Amino acid sequence: MDSEMQKIEILDTTLRDGAQGEGISFSLRDKLAVTETLDELGVAWIEAGNPGSNPKDMEFFRSLSALKLKNSKVCAFGPTRKKGVKAADDNMLRCLLDAGTEGVVIFGKSWDLHVREVLHAQPEENIEMICDTIVFLKKEGRFVIYDCEHFFDGWNANASYAVSAVKAAAQAGADRIVLCDTNGGTFPSAVKSVVEHLKKICNVPLGIHAHNDCGVALANSIEAVQAGCTHVQGTLTGFGERCGNTALAALIPSLELKMNLRCIPQGSLIRIGELTRRIAEIANVIISDDMPYIGAHAFSHKAGMHVDGVLKTSRSFEHIDPQAVGNERHLLMSEVGGRAAIAQRVKKTDPSIHKEHPVIISLAEKLKKLEAEGWAYEGADASFEILIRRELGRYKPFFAIEAYRVLSEHPVSDKIQCSHAWVKVLVDGQYEMAAAEGVGPVGALDCALRRALTRFFPGLAKVRLEDYKVRVIDGKDATAAHVRVLIESTDGQRNWNTVGVSADIIDASRAALVDSIEYMLINEMEAVR
Amino acid sequence: MDSEMQKIEILDTTLRDGAQGEGISFSLRDKLAVTETLDELGVAWIEAGNPGSNPKDMEFFRSLSALKLKNSKVCAFGPTRKKGVKAADDNMLRCLLDAGTEGVVIFGKSWDLHVREVLHAQPEENIEMICDTIVFLKKEGRFVIYDCEHFFDGWNANASYAVSAVKAAAQAGADRIVLCDTNGGTFPSAVKSVVEHLKKICNVPLGIHAHNDCGVALANSIEAVQAGCTHVQGTLTGFGERCGNTALAALIPSLELKMNLRCIPQGSLIRIGELTRRIAEIANVIISDDMPYIGAHAFSHKAGMHVDGVLKTSRSFEHIDPQAVGNERHLLMSEVGGRAAIAQRVKKTDPSIHKEHPVIISLAEKLKKLEAEGWAYEGADASFEILIRRELGRYKPFFAIEAYRVLSEHPVSDKIQCSHAWVKVLVDGQYEMAAAEGVGPVGALDCALRRALTRFFPGLAKVRLEDYKVRVIDGKDATAAHVRVLIESTDGQRNWNTVGVSADIIDASRAALVDSIEYMLINEMEAVR
Repeated sequence: MDSEMQKIEILDTTLRDGAQGEGISFSLRDKLAVTETLDELGVAWIEAGNPGSNPKDMEFFRSLSALKLKNSKVCAFGPTRKKGVKAADDNMLRCLLDAGTEGVVIFGKSWDLHVREVLHAQPEENIEMICDTIVFLKKEGRFVIYDCEHFFDGWNANASYAVSAVKAAAQAGADRIVLCDTNGGTFPSAVKSVVEHLKKICNVPLGIHAHNDCGVALANSIEAVQAGCTHVQGTLTGFGERCGNTALAALIPSLELKMNLRCIPQGSLIRIGELTRRIAEIANVIISDDMPYIGAHAFSHKAGMHVDGVLKTSRSFEHIDPQAVGNERHLLMSEVGGRAAIAQRVKKTDPSIHKEHPVIISLAEKLKKLEAEGWAYEGADASFEILIRRELGRYKPFFAIEAYRVLSEHPVSDKIQCSHAWVKVLVDGQYEMAAAEGVGPVGALDCALRRALTRFFPGLAKVRLEDYKVRVIDGKDATAAHVRVLIESTDGQRNWNTVGVSADIIDASRAALVDSIEYMLINEMEAVR
Repeated sequence: MDSEMQKIEILDTTLRDGAQGEGISFSLRDKLAVTETLDELGVAWIEAGNPGSNPKDMEFFRSLSALKLKNSKVCAFGPTRKKGVKAADDNMLRCLLDAGTEGVVIFGKSWDLHVREVLHAQPEENIEMICDTIVFLKKEGRFVIYDCEHFFDGWNANASYAVSAVKAAAQAGADRIVLCDTNGGTFPSAVKSVVEHLKKICNVPLGIHAHNDCGVALANSIEAVQAGCTHVQGTLTGFGERCGNTALAALIPSLELKMNLRCIPQGSLIRIGELTRRIAEIANVIISDDMPYIGAHAFSHKAGMHVDGVLKTSRSFEHIDPQAVGNERHLLMSEVGGRAAIAQRVKKTDPSIHKEHPVIISLAEKLKKLEAEGWAYEGADASFEILIRRELGRYKPFFAIEAYRVLSEHPVSDKIQCSHAWVKVLVDGQYEMAAAEGVGPVGALDCALRRALTRFFPGLAKVRLEDYKVRVIDGKDATAAHVRVLIESTDGQRNWNTVGVSADIIDASRAALVDSIEYMLINEMEAVR
């Protein structure tokens, strides 16, 4: 059946257009790691840089041969030849060839405004530049992907000129012709009608390159494929210039699961979330929780009616099976969620527990009470796990904090930090004390607590805080209001989240820190068994 | 010309569907603040909650009459009557009427699967439930917006049943019929053809309610409007269940600027970014930098070629004029756009200052530097006022904190609170010290500071903190990250907001507390004059 699926050729431009996004920059090592990740996913093409404009990119192309890519081919990116220069004498084109890639992506003008006001060239001159460049690169044996920059704006301004540029590229031998919505201002209906028109007059396979300035890059790519494009450009995470490129991690599942098209090798789709996160990690960018298909909240259900519905019939509130993209359903533990959601969650800890079990009833009541006090377990599954174990009578704390003291003072000399903490803990009948300083009171307390416990639990040395969030629950009482602290911890391999609530921010942080350490110790103990 | 623009009716459901998003929860005060903000923008309808399922929502509706809304009408949300119960006897409908809103939004089933497997009802029974509910509410004088839940899934499963539900709602007298893509799995082309079909058979104005599970909610809303819908539902920021709702802040500019439709009162569009950020701030959620139209990067140009192009001809790389949505091109950040806004604000303090005044230039530069450090003045006008006065050379602090010390300890006896603070202040050459305790360290510091200053400034006795918010600016360094503290103070008659930023939460709170007291003293002094 797979062999009958029509193929869509995916080109990822994370390393070129993605790197043009504000705040994104890749070292050479980063670029190689991104390339390997994209190859693991199995996109057809990796657009890896502009060797003519960026010497770092050329270094990357030289290092490339050391990678053994299994699925993807690499291409280099550059402009048509300069005005008044022969293709063979053009420096940029020379660099493109030197990059030594199997494919090249050439971008050229389709919008007469750009030809006149940015290139300062005559319309016919631009057409010659497109032709010469493609003919030259084809002679050199390259696979040529021709990007029609600003195609849709060009179509609106002067359709016959935009079409003549496409025809010239086709006649010159381009292997792909890609319609770019460079400014991101085009709507899906316009993309559809333009692609349908071009399909009639152009035999070269067409592609789409959409930007997200109106928030419709994904839709434009889907419409383009429905209208006959077989090549799609974007970046896995969606980042790129301004509002970004088409987010391939959100597009590929739509094309594969809903349009029955094959974009990446069979079996890759369930890894798309993991590999997208890896690229985001390399770029030091966060994948938004509400990202379609792969986001942490993409299959979260909170309203009781939705939780109830999804448990009766999953497709009642889920447009696809979350497992198809390696994601999972989350029933949020909240007062609106109800007992069905709690039972489902408790089963992960103890599969024998059913919805009518007294533990579920008492947990539901406890949850209601805790939520009224400001606790929220939606984003704190590790704390909820501890709550469940306590309710099941299977939880004996590993340690207790006997006392702590945190001092913040101002002014301080430049030799000490402004917050200091000391902590006294009790572990198996033995006391231990430790002190630490920090830039803030919570940092100082965290540091002192770890220091005191590491003697007993050396595994704690590899745990660190990844994220720290504070939310004032109800501002009415101002600084006497309750605060909710959410902490994300990591041991380098997995992350977990805990919560603490108190009128005192330090005490709330203490509760979340204690849960985080307890959770890590529970897992360590169970791994040993 | 404006009068000729066709109108699109916008319904914002931040307070209902938005509140179902993971991590979103609103207090009563938050809900009132969101309502006022939406009214300031001027959306037609504010869907404000489900009074039948949530007692907190009912409290909100009771408080509503105190707000003087200028542009928007409020509606309450609830389901069709229960199976086997008369509409007049249905508790949920009774709650809807008790909410006392001009409009009500009723949701009902269109998908036969849901009718059978979730509602456990017969198809005809569901149609009766829809009719009875609408007839009853129309008799009670309500404007009825009927939401066809899962309409597109219903259409795919059994189109004639889905259509019969729409016809029933129309015959029963619904004022609007809204097609919901509840699971967010529908593509734009399908939305278009379904809306076109319904336009032919239904005379009631149609609406669209899209979810973003395929990343095409914006596109689906645009297609629906192109096909004839005149009512659009969404949330300004885009948040909501799972992957969120249609982000109205990204939709409205497309409809107004590119389709020449009127969604909000003339002149409102340039404030859409500011007001969306205010709602995000209330929800303690961050607006993504790459958000279309309003994101900080939406008009950022990084690639040299783009920078060059945009300086030659702005529309070469910008699909709209950034100023139309109150945003600005990133290249010129400290220039024209930003400076005009600052000048506008400074005129409130000194009407003689114009845009080219050196004070404006130095303020713009200072603001840029402070914002890079994490300060944000959007929600802290009193702190900005002090910044302006300092820059104008008209500000002499009333007091200085010479030193403070805050101690938090655990355990404590039941006679003392767990946080203690002492503060030493200097006022006009005179020192004063005071100590206080509190439930948290910030409360203790606030209390000690007021105590020390009240001897000099008796007016402080009537000031109290009204709200206190903490935002971790960059979570990556966990507890060593910077925090931004926002404080709302009141003297019983008016409220004002101040901000503080530091790696230490106590120091950040100190900065915001000092600004709050200084601002109050400035106003007291000027009132005396």
